[in-house]
Amino acid sequence: MNENIDINDLNTSISFFKKEVKKFVEERNWSVFHTPKNLVQAINCEAGELSQLLLFKDYKKEAIWNDETLLTNISDEIADVFIYIISLINTLKLDLTQVFTRKMEKNKEKYSSKEFNNGIYYKK
Amino acid sequence: MNENIDINDLNTSISFFKKEVKKFVEERNWSVFHTPKNLVQAINCEAGELSQLLLFKDYKKEAIWNDETLLTNISDEIADVFIYIISLINTLKLDLTQVFTRKMEKNKEKYSSKEFNNGIYYKK
Amino acid sequence: MNENIDINDLNTSISFFKKEVKKFVEERNWSVFHTPKNLVQAINCEAGELSQLLLFKDYKKEAIWNDETLLTNISDEIADVFIYIISLINTLKLDLTQVFTRKMEKNKEKYSSKEFNNGIYYKK
Amino acid sequence: MNENIDINDLNTSISFFKKEVKKFVEERNWSVFHTPKNLVQAINCEAGELSQLLLFKDYKKEAIWNDETLLTNISDEIADVFIYIISLINTLKLDLTQVFTRKMEKNKEKYSSKEFNNGIYYKK
Repeated sequence: MNENIDINDLNTSISFFKKEVKKFVEERNWSVFHTPKNLVQAINCEAGELSQLLLFKDYKKEAIWNDETLLTNISDEIADVFIYIISLINTLKLDLTQVFTRKMEKNKEKYSSKEFNNGIYYKK
Repeated sequence: MNENIDINDLNTSISFFKKEVKKFVEERNWSVFHTPKNLVQAINCEAGELSQLLLFKDYKKEAIWNDETLLTNISDEIADVFIYIISLINTLKLDLTQVFTRKMEKNKEKYSSKEFNNGIYYKK
Repeated sequence: MNENIDINDLNTSISFFKKEVKKFVEERNWSVFHTPKNLVQAINCEAGELSQLLLFKDYKKEAIWNDETLLTNISDEIADVFIYIISLINTLKLDLTQVFTRKMEKNKEKYSSKEFNNGIYYKK
Repeated sequence: MNENIDINDLNTSISFFKKEVKKFVEERNWSVFHTPKNLVQAINCEAGELSQLLLFKDYKKEAIWNDETLLTNISDEIADVFIYIISLINTLKLDLTQVFTRKMEKNKEKYSSKEFNNGIYYKK
Protein backbone atom coordinates (compact mmCIF):
# COMPACT_ATOMS: atom_id res chain seq x y z
CA MET A 1 0.00 0.00 0.00
CA ASN A 2 1.28 3.43 -0.90
CA GLU A 3 1.00 5.47 2.27
CA ASN A 4 1.65 8.67 0.30
CA ILE A 5 -1.39 8.28 -1.94
CA ASP A 6 -3.27 11.23 -0.50
CA ILE A 7 -0.49 13.74 -0.01
CA ASN A 8 -0.35 16.78 -2.23
CA ASP A 9 0.68 20.44 -2.26
CA LEU A 10 -2.34 21.47 -0.19
CA ASN A 11 -1.64 19.24 2.77
CA THR A 12 2.12 18.68 2.77
CA SER A 13 4.52 20.86 4.73
CA ILE A 14 8.23 21.37 4.02
CA SER A 15 9.07 19.29 7.10
CA PHE A 16 7.75 16.20 5.26
CA PHE A 17 10.28 16.66 2.45
CA LYS A 18 13.06 17.31 4.94
CA LYS A 19 12.31 14.07 6.79
CA GLU A 20 12.05 12.00 3.60
CA VAL A 21 15.35 13.28 2.19
CA LYS A 22 17.14 12.94 5.55
CA LYS A 23 16.01 9.32 5.86
CA PHE A 24 17.04 8.54 2.28
CA VAL A 25 20.51 10.03 2.76
CA GLU A 26 21.11 8.43 6.17
CA GLU A 27 19.95 4.95 5.16
CA ARG A 28 22.67 4.95 2.46
CA ASN A 29 25.35 6.53 4.65
CA TRP A 30 25.59 9.38 2.17
CA SER A 31 25.77 12.23 4.71
CA VAL A 32 29.52 12.39 4.11
CA PHE A 33 28.86 13.34 0.46
CA HIS A 34 26.15 15.89 1.25
CA THR A 35 28.50 18.72 2.21
CA PRO A 36 27.40 22.29 1.43
CA LYS A 37 29.94 22.57 -1.41
CA ASN A 38 28.93 19.26 -3.01
CA LEU A 39 25.24 20.10 -2.71
CA VAL A 40 25.51 23.50 -4.43
CA GLN A 41 27.49 21.82 -7.20
CA ALA A 42 24.85 19.08 -7.42
CA ILE A 43 21.99 21.60 -7.60
CA ASN A 44 23.75 23.31 -10.51
CA CYS A 45 24.29 20.00 -12.35
CA GLU A 46 20.65 18.97 -11.97
CA ALA A 47 19.49 22.45 -13.01
CA GLY A 48 21.53 21.97 -16.20
CA GLU A 49 19.79 18.66 -16.91
CA LEU A 50 16.41 20.34 -16.40
CA SER A 51 17.37 23.22 -18.70
CA GLN A 52 18.60 20.84 -21.41
CA LEU A 53 15.09 19.36 -21.75
CA LEU A 54 13.87 22.65 -23.23
CA LEU A 55 17.04 23.58 -25.13
CA PHE A 56 16.22 24.52 -28.74
CA LYS A 57 12.53 24.04 -27.88
CA ASP A 58 10.24 26.84 -26.70
CA TYR A 59 7.29 24.69 -25.67
CA LYS A 60 4.22 26.02 -23.91
CA LYS A 61 2.53 24.12 -21.10
CA GLU A 62 0.08 22.43 -23.49
CA ALA A 63 2.83 21.03 -25.75
CA ILE A 64 4.65 19.67 -22.69
CA TRP A 65 1.48 18.01 -21.36
CA ASN A 66 0.94 16.44 -24.80
CA ASP A 67 4.38 14.79 -24.67
CA GLU A 68 4.19 12.31 -21.81
CA THR A 69 7.90 11.44 -21.88
CA LEU A 70 8.92 15.09 -21.80
CA LEU A 71 6.48 15.85 -18.95
CA THR A 72 7.87 12.94 -16.92
CA ASN A 73 11.46 13.97 -17.62
CA ILE A 74 10.81 17.60 -16.66
CA SER A 75 9.00 16.46 -13.49
CA ASP A 76 11.89 14.17 -12.56
CA GLU A 77 14.51 16.87 -13.06
CA ILE A 78 12.47 19.40 -11.07
CA ALA A 79 12.37 16.79 -8.31
CA ASP A 80 16.15 16.27 -8.49
CA VAL A 81 16.85 19.99 -8.07
CA PHE A 82 14.30 20.18 -5.23
CA ILE A 83 15.68 17.10 -3.44
CA TYR A 84 19.20 18.57 -3.38
CA ILE A 85 17.81 21.91 -2.17
CA ILE A 86 16.04 20.14 0.66
CA SER A 87 19.22 18.24 1.50
CA LEU A 88 21.17 21.52 1.58
CA ILE A 89 18.51 22.98 3.89
CA ASN A 90 18.92 19.88 6.10
CA THR A 91 22.73 20.08 6.09
CA LEU A 92 22.70 23.79 6.95
CA LYS A 93 19.87 23.43 9.52
CA LEU A 94 17.86 26.16 7.82
CA ASP A 95 14.13 26.77 7.66
CA LEU A 96 13.16 26.98 3.98
CA THR A 97 9.92 28.80 4.78
CA GLN A 98 11.80 31.57 6.57
CA VAL A 99 14.52 31.66 3.88
CA PHE A 100 11.77 32.05 1.26
CA THR A 101 9.81 34.66 3.21
CA ARG A 102 12.84 36.87 3.84
CA LYS A 103 13.90 36.81 0.20
CA MET A 104 10.37 37.54 -1.02
CA GLU A 105 10.36 40.65 1.22
CA LYS A 106 13.59 41.81 -0.45
CA ASN A 107 12.20 41.09 -3.91
CA LYS A 108 9.02 43.04 -3.15
CA GLU A 109 11.15 46.01 -2.12
CA LYS A 110 13.52 45.75 -5.09
CA TYR A 111 10.73 45.29 -7.62
CA SER A 112 7.89 47.36 -6.16
CA SER A 113 4.56 46.55 -7.78
CA LYS A 114 4.04 50.30 -8.28
CA GLU A 115 7.12 50.54 -10.46
CA PHE A 116 6.94 47.08 -12.06
CA ASN A 117 3.42 46.50 -13.28
CA ASN A 118 3.56 46.89 -17.01
CA GLY A 119 5.55 43.88 -18.16
CA ILE A 120 8.94 45.57 -17.87
CA TYR A 121 11.39 43.29 -16.14
CA TYR A 122 14.47 45.26 -15.32
CA LYS A 123 15.25 48.55 -13.67
CA LYS A 124 16.39 51.07 -16.29
CA MET B 1 2.81 43.71 11.42
CA ASN B 2 4.42 40.77 9.72
CA GLU B 3 1.62 38.30 9.15
CA ASN B 4 4.17 35.60 8.32
CA ILE B 5 5.91 35.76 11.68
CA ASP B 6 4.79 32.34 12.80
CA ILE B 7 5.12 30.35 9.63
CA ASN B 8 7.86 27.78 9.33
CA ASP B 9 8.68 24.43 7.74
CA LEU B 10 6.48 22.53 10.19
CA ASN B 11 3.27 24.36 9.42
CA THR B 12 3.65 25.59 5.84
CA SER B 13 2.45 23.61 2.84
CA ILE B 14 3.70 23.92 -0.74
CA SER B 15 0.42 25.58 -1.71
CA PHE B 16 1.48 28.63 0.35
CA PHE B 17 4.63 29.11 -1.75
CA LYS B 18 2.67 28.60 -4.96
CA LYS B 19 0.16 31.30 -3.99
CA GLU B 20 2.87 33.77 -2.90
CA VAL B 21 4.89 33.36 -6.11
CA LYS B 22 1.79 33.46 -8.33
CA LYS B 23 0.69 36.73 -6.70
CA PHE B 24 4.16 38.26 -7.02
CA VAL B 25 4.40 37.38 -10.72
CA GLU B 26 0.86 38.49 -11.58
CA GLU B 27 1.07 41.82 -9.74
CA ARG B 28 4.04 42.74 -11.96
CA ASN B 29 2.53 41.35 -15.19
CA TRP B 30 5.52 39.04 -15.49
CA SER B 31 3.59 35.90 -16.51
CA VAL B 32 4.68 36.53 -20.09
CA PHE B 33 8.33 36.06 -19.02
CA HIS B 34 7.67 32.98 -16.91
CA THR B 35 7.55 30.50 -19.78
CA PRO B 36 8.83 26.96 -19.15
CA LYS B 37 11.97 27.61 -21.24
CA ASN B 38 12.80 30.88 -19.48
CA LEU B 39 12.21 29.35 -16.07
CA VAL B 40 14.52 26.37 -16.58
CA GLN B 41 17.17 28.82 -17.83
CA ALA B 42 16.56 31.02 -14.77
CA ILE B 43 16.82 28.07 -12.36
CA ASN B 44 20.20 27.19 -13.90
CA CYS B 45 21.45 30.80 -13.60
CA GLU B 46 20.43 31.07 -9.95
CA ALA B 47 21.93 27.65 -9.21
CA GLY B 48 25.21 29.00 -10.62
CA GLU B 49 25.08 32.00 -8.28
CA LEU B 50 24.46 29.68 -5.34
CA SER B 51 27.34 27.42 -6.36
CA GLN B 52 29.70 30.39 -6.76
CA LEU B 53 29.33 31.22 -3.06
CA LEU B 54 31.22 28.04 -2.16
CA LEU B 55 33.64 28.01 -5.09
CA PHE B 56 37.24 27.54 -3.87
CA LYS B 57 35.83 27.19 -0.33
CA ASP B 58 34.92 23.86 1.27
CA TYR B 59 33.14 25.24 4.33
CA LYS B 60 31.29 23.10 6.81
CA LYS B 61 27.98 24.18 8.33
CA GLU B 62 29.68 25.77 11.38
CA ALA B 63 31.97 27.98 9.26
CA ILE B 64 28.97 29.14 7.23
CA TRP B 65 26.98 29.96 10.36
CA ASN B 66 29.96 31.93 11.68
CA ASP B 67 29.98 34.13 8.56
CA GLU B 68 26.70 36.06 8.69
CA THR B 69 27.09 37.60 5.23
CA LEU B 70 27.81 34.24 3.65
CA LEU B 71 24.87 32.61 5.45
CA THR B 72 22.53 35.36 4.24
CA ASN B 73 23.86 35.12 0.69
CA ILE B 74 23.49 31.34 0.59
CA SER B 75 19.97 31.60 2.04
CA ASP B 76 19.01 34.21 -0.55
CA GLU B 77 20.34 32.16 -3.45
CA ILE B 78 18.59 29.01 -2.19
CA ALA B 79 15.40 31.08 -2.11
CA ASP B 80 15.96 32.31 -5.68
CA VAL B 81 16.32 28.77 -7.02
CA PHE B 82 13.27 27.66 -5.01
CA ILE B 83 11.13 30.62 -6.15
CA TYR B 84 11.79 29.84 -9.82
CA ILE B 85 11.06 26.15 -9.19
CA ILE B 86 7.74 27.09 -7.63
CA SER B 87 6.99 29.38 -10.57
CA LEU B 88 7.75 26.54 -13.00
CA ILE B 89 5.43 24.27 -10.98
CA ASN B 90 2.77 26.99 -11.25
CA THR B 91 3.29 27.51 -14.99
CA LEU B 92 3.14 23.78 -15.68
CA LYS B 93 0.20 23.19 -13.28
CA LEU B 94 2.11 20.43 -11.50
CA ASP B 95 1.89 19.18 -7.92
CA LEU B 96 5.39 19.39 -6.43
CA THR B 97 4.54 16.89 -3.69
CA GLN B 98 3.54 14.26 -6.24
CA VAL B 99 6.52 15.12 -8.49
CA PHE B 100 8.80 14.64 -5.46
CA THR B 101 7.14 11.44 -4.26
CA ARG B 102 7.31 9.76 -7.68
CA LYS B 103 10.99 10.59 -8.11
CA MET B 104 11.85 9.42 -4.61
CA GLU B 105 10.24 6.06 -5.43
CA LYS B 106 12.49 5.79 -8.51
CA ASN B 107 15.55 6.77 -6.49
CA LYS B 108 14.75 4.17 -3.81
CA GLU B 109 14.56 1.51 -6.53
CA LYS B 110 17.72 2.68 -8.32
CA TYR B 111 19.76 3.01 -5.14
CA SER B 112 18.33 0.25 -2.91
CA SER B 113 19.33 0.68 0.73
CA LYS B 114 20.44 -2.99 0.70
CA GLU B 115 23.00 -2.30 -2.00
CA PHE B 116 23.91 1.26 -1.01
CA ASN B 117 24.55 1.41 2.70
CA ASN B 118 28.28 1.66 3.06
CA GLY B 119 29.09 5.09 1.76
CA ILE B 120 29.54 4.07 -1.87
CA TYR B 121 27.75 6.48 -4.13
CA TYR B 122 27.57 5.04 -7.61
CA LYS B 123 26.62 1.73 -9.12
CA LYS B 124 29.76 -0.11 -10.17
CA MET C 1 52.82 49.50 -25.19
CA ASN C 2 50.36 46.68 -25.60
CA GLU C 3 52.37 43.82 -26.99
CA ASN C 4 49.15 41.96 -27.83
CA ILE C 5 47.83 44.64 -30.17
CA ASP C 6 48.14 42.55 -33.32
CA ILE C 7 47.00 39.18 -32.09
CA ASN C 8 43.66 37.82 -33.23
CA ASP C 9 41.83 34.60 -34.03
CA LEU C 10 43.69 34.19 -37.34
CA ASN C 11 47.19 34.18 -35.89
CA THR C 12 46.78 32.92 -32.32
CA SER C 13 47.13 29.28 -31.38
CA ILE C 14 45.67 27.57 -28.31
CA SER C 15 49.16 27.31 -26.82
CA PHE C 16 49.16 31.11 -26.39
CA PHE C 17 46.06 30.98 -24.17
CA LYS C 18 47.49 28.05 -22.21
CA LYS C 19 50.69 29.99 -21.49
CA GLU C 20 48.87 33.17 -20.50
CA VAL C 21 46.49 31.40 -18.11
CA LYS C 22 49.30 29.26 -16.63
CA LYS C 23 51.37 32.38 -15.94
CA PHE C 24 48.41 34.21 -14.40
CA VAL C 25 47.59 31.31 -12.08
CA GLU C 26 51.20 30.65 -11.05
CA GLU C 27 52.04 34.30 -10.35
CA ARG C 28 49.24 34.33 -7.77
CA ASN C 29 50.00 30.90 -6.31
CA TRP C 30 46.52 29.81 -7.27
CA SER C 31 47.43 26.35 -8.63
CA VAL C 32 46.20 24.85 -5.36
CA PHE C 33 42.69 26.15 -6.14
CA HIS C 34 42.69 25.05 -9.77
CA THR C 35 41.87 21.39 -9.11
CA PRO C 36 39.78 19.54 -11.70
CA LYS C 37 36.74 19.53 -9.39
CA ASN C 38 36.98 23.25 -8.60
CA LEU C 39 37.47 24.12 -12.26
CA VAL C 40 34.42 22.23 -13.51
CA GLN C 41 32.40 23.92 -10.76
CA ALA C 42 33.86 27.30 -11.78
CA ILE C 43 33.05 26.74 -15.47
CA ASN C 44 29.44 26.01 -14.51
CA CYS C 45 29.21 29.16 -12.35
CA GLU C 46 30.61 31.39 -15.09
CA ALA C 47 28.34 29.76 -17.67
CA GLY C 48 25.42 30.72 -15.43
CA GLU C 49 26.56 34.34 -15.34
CA LEU C 50 26.83 34.34 -19.14
CA SER C 51 23.36 32.82 -19.50
CA GLN C 52 21.85 35.35 -17.10
CA LEU C 53 22.78 38.20 -19.46
CA LEU C 54 20.20 36.93 -21.97
CA LEU C 55 17.59 35.71 -19.49
CA PHE C 56 14.15 37.08 -20.39
CA LYS C 57 15.75 38.69 -23.47
CA ASP C 58 15.90 37.01 -26.88
CA TYR C 59 18.27 39.48 -28.53
CA LYS C 60 19.71 39.00 -32.00
CA LYS C 61 23.32 39.87 -32.78
CA GLU C 62 22.39 43.39 -33.98
CA ALA C 63 20.59 44.29 -30.73
CA ILE C 64 23.56 43.07 -28.72
CA TRP C 65 26.01 45.10 -30.82
CA ASN C 66 23.78 48.16 -30.31
CA ASP C 67 24.05 47.82 -26.51
CA GLU C 68 27.72 48.44 -25.71
CA THR C 69 27.42 47.48 -22.04
CA LEU C 70 25.69 44.22 -22.87
CA LEU C 71 28.25 43.39 -25.57
CA THR C 72 31.10 44.01 -23.12
CA ASN C 73 29.41 41.96 -20.41
CA ILE C 74 28.75 39.04 -22.76
CA SER C 75 32.34 39.22 -24.04
CA ASP C 76 33.71 39.23 -20.49
CA GLU C 77 31.62 36.26 -19.42
CA ILE C 78 32.59 34.29 -22.55
CA ALA C 79 36.20 35.02 -21.61
CA ASP C 80 35.64 33.82 -18.04
CA VAL C 81 34.23 30.48 -19.20
CA PHE C 82 37.06 30.13 -21.74
CA ILE C 83 39.78 31.02 -19.20
CA TYR C 84 38.60 28.30 -16.81
CA ILE C 85 38.37 25.81 -19.68
CA ILE C 86 41.97 26.62 -20.61
CA SER C 87 43.02 26.24 -16.98
CA LEU C 88 41.31 22.83 -16.83
CA ILE C 89 43.12 21.82 -20.03
CA ASN C 90 46.37 22.95 -18.35
CA THR C 91 45.64 21.11 -15.10
CA LEU C 92 44.74 17.89 -16.93
CA LYS C 93 47.63 18.20 -19.44
CA LEU C 94 45.25 17.83 -22.36
CA ASP C 95 45.47 19.10 -25.92
CA LEU C 96 42.30 21.12 -26.61
CA THR C 97 42.72 20.79 -30.37
CA GLN C 98 42.74 17.01 -30.15
CA VAL C 99 39.90 17.00 -27.60
CA PHE C 100 37.87 19.17 -30.01
CA THR C 101 38.73 17.14 -33.10
CA ARG C 102 37.82 13.81 -31.54
CA LYS C 103 34.45 15.11 -30.30
CA MET C 104 33.65 16.68 -33.66
CA GLU C 105 34.23 13.29 -35.30
CA LYS C 106 31.72 11.75 -32.89
CA ASN C 107 29.22 14.55 -33.53
CA LYS C 108 29.55 14.11 -37.32
CA GLU C 109 28.78 10.43 -36.91
CA LYS C 110 25.88 10.97 -34.48
CA TYR C 111 24.33 13.76 -36.55
CA SER C 112 25.16 12.76 -40.13
CA SER C 113 24.65 15.64 -42.56
CA LYS C 114 22.64 13.25 -44.75
CA GLU C 115 20.09 12.73 -41.99
CA PHE C 116 20.27 16.19 -40.41
CA ASN C 117 20.04 18.79 -43.14
CA ASN C 118 16.54 20.19 -42.91
CA GLY C 119 16.54 22.09 -39.67
CA ILE C 120 15.52 19.17 -37.49
CA TYR C 121 17.67 19.04 -34.41
CA TYR C 122 17.07 15.76 -32.64
CA LYS C 123 16.92 12.12 -33.63
CA LYS C 124 13.31 10.97 -33.65
CA MET D 1 43.02 9.55 -44.18
CA ASN D 2 42.58 11.86 -41.25
CA GLU D 3 43.68 15.26 -42.47
CA ASN D 4 43.72 16.53 -38.88
CA ILE D 5 46.32 14.07 -37.68
CA ASP D 6 49.04 16.62 -37.15
CA ILE D 7 47.08 19.48 -35.67
CA ASN D 8 47.52 20.34 -32.03
CA ASP D 9 47.49 23.27 -29.62
CA LEU D 10 50.88 24.54 -30.85
CA ASN D 11 49.91 24.96 -34.47
CA THR D 12 46.13 25.55 -34.44
CA SER D 13 44.59 29.00 -34.35
CA ILE D 14 41.11 29.90 -33.13
CA SER D 15 40.06 30.55 -36.74
CA PHE D 16 40.33 26.80 -37.39
CA PHE D 17 37.74 26.01 -34.70
CA LYS D 18 35.48 28.79 -35.94
CA LYS D 19 35.52 27.38 -39.49
CA GLU D 20 34.93 23.81 -38.35
CA VAL D 21 31.96 24.73 -36.14
CA LYS D 22 30.48 27.07 -38.76
CA LYS D 23 30.64 24.32 -41.40
CA PHE D 24 29.10 21.76 -39.03
CA VAL D 25 26.20 24.06 -38.14
CA GLU D 26 25.54 25.21 -41.71
CA GLU D 27 25.62 21.71 -43.24
CA ARG D 28 22.77 20.73 -40.89
CA ASN D 29 20.81 23.98 -41.32
CA TRP D 30 21.10 24.56 -37.60
CA SER D 31 21.92 28.30 -37.74
CA VAL D 32 18.30 29.01 -36.82
CA PHE D 33 18.84 27.24 -33.47
CA HIS D 34 22.19 28.88 -32.75
CA THR D 35 20.79 32.17 -31.48
CA PRO D 36 22.70 33.99 -28.74
CA LYS D 37 20.07 33.07 -26.13
CA ASN D 38 20.01 29.38 -27.07
CA LEU D 39 23.80 29.21 -27.11
CA VAL D 40 24.28 30.67 -23.63
CA GLN D 41 21.65 28.24 -22.37
CA ALA D 42 23.46 25.38 -24.17
CA ILE D 43 26.85 26.37 -22.71
CA ASN D 44 25.33 26.25 -19.23
CA CYS D 45 23.76 22.82 -19.85
CA GLU D 46 27.02 21.35 -21.13
CA ALA D 47 28.95 22.93 -18.26
CA GLY D 48 26.56 21.10 -15.91
CA GLU D 49 27.30 17.77 -17.62
CA LEU D 50 31.03 18.43 -17.27
CA SER D 51 30.65 19.34 -13.60
CA GLN D 52 28.58 16.22 -12.90
CA LEU D 53 31.54 14.00 -13.89
CA LEU D 54 33.42 15.15 -10.79
CA LEU D 55 30.44 15.47 -8.43
CA PHE D 56 31.13 13.68 -5.14
CA LYS D 57 34.63 12.88 -6.47
CA ASP D 58 37.68 15.06 -5.83
CA TYR D 59 40.05 13.36 -8.28
CA LYS D 60 43.50 14.64 -9.07
CA LYS D 61 44.89 14.57 -12.59
CA GLU D 62 46.58 11.18 -12.06
CA ALA D 63 43.35 9.47 -10.93
CA ILE D 64 41.55 10.88 -13.96
CA TRP D 65 44.26 9.67 -16.34
CA ASN D 66 44.04 6.21 -14.72
CA ASP D 67 40.32 6.01 -15.54
CA GLU D 68 40.12 5.94 -19.33
CA THR D 69 36.33 6.22 -19.47
CA LEU D 70 36.32 9.22 -17.13
CA LEU D 71 39.13 10.92 -19.08
CA THR D 72 37.22 10.45 -22.33
CA ASN D 73 33.98 11.70 -20.80
CA ILE D 74 35.65 14.79 -19.33
CA SER D 75 37.39 15.48 -22.66
CA ASP D 76 34.10 15.14 -24.54
CA GLU D 77 32.25 17.49 -22.20
CA ILE D 78 35.06 20.07 -22.34
CA ALA D 79 34.74 19.88 -26.11
CA ASP D 80 30.97 20.37 -25.95
CA VAL D 81 31.31 23.54 -23.87
CA PHE D 82 34.07 24.80 -26.18
CA ILE D 83 32.10 24.04 -29.37
CA TYR D 84 29.13 26.08 -28.15
CA ILE D 85 31.45 28.91 -27.09
CA ILE D 86 32.96 28.94 -30.58
CA SER D 87 29.47 28.91 -32.11
CA LEU D 88 28.49 31.89 -29.93
CA ILE D 89 31.66 33.70 -31.03
CA ASN D 90 30.64 32.93 -34.66
CA THR D 91 27.05 34.09 -34.16
CA LEU D 92 28.13 37.33 -32.49
CA LYS D 93 31.02 37.94 -34.96
CA LEU D 94 33.48 38.33 -32.12
CA ASP D 95 37.22 37.69 -31.98
CA LEU D 96 37.85 35.27 -29.11
CA THR D 97 41.52 36.26 -28.87
CA GLN D 98 40.61 39.90 -28.32
CA VAL D 99 37.77 38.99 -25.95
CA PHE D 100 40.25 36.90 -23.94
CA THR D 101 43.02 39.52 -23.98
CA ARG D 102 40.74 42.32 -22.80
CA LYS D 103 39.37 40.25 -19.92
CA MET D 104 42.83 39.12 -18.87
CA GLU D 105 43.87 42.77 -18.63
CA LYS D 106 40.91 43.43 -16.33
CA ASN D 107 41.73 40.35 -14.23
CA LYS D 108 45.39 41.43 -13.90
CA GLU D 109 44.20 44.81 -12.62
CA LYS D 110 41.58 43.36 -10.27
CA TYR D 111 43.90 40.71 -8.87
CA SER D 112 47.31 42.39 -8.98
CA SER D 113 50.16 39.91 -8.55
CA LYS D 114 51.60 42.20 -5.88
CA GLU D 115 48.49 41.82 -3.74
CA PHE D 116 47.61 38.24 -4.69
CA ASN D 117 50.71 36.10 -4.46
CA ASN D 118 50.30 34.06 -1.32
CA GLY D 119 47.49 31.70 -2.12
CA ILE D 120 44.70 33.99 -0.99
CA TYR D 121 41.94 34.01 -3.51
CA TYR D 122 39.56 36.81 -2.69
CA LYS D 123 39.86 40.46 -1.82
CA LYS D 124 39.22 40.92 1.88
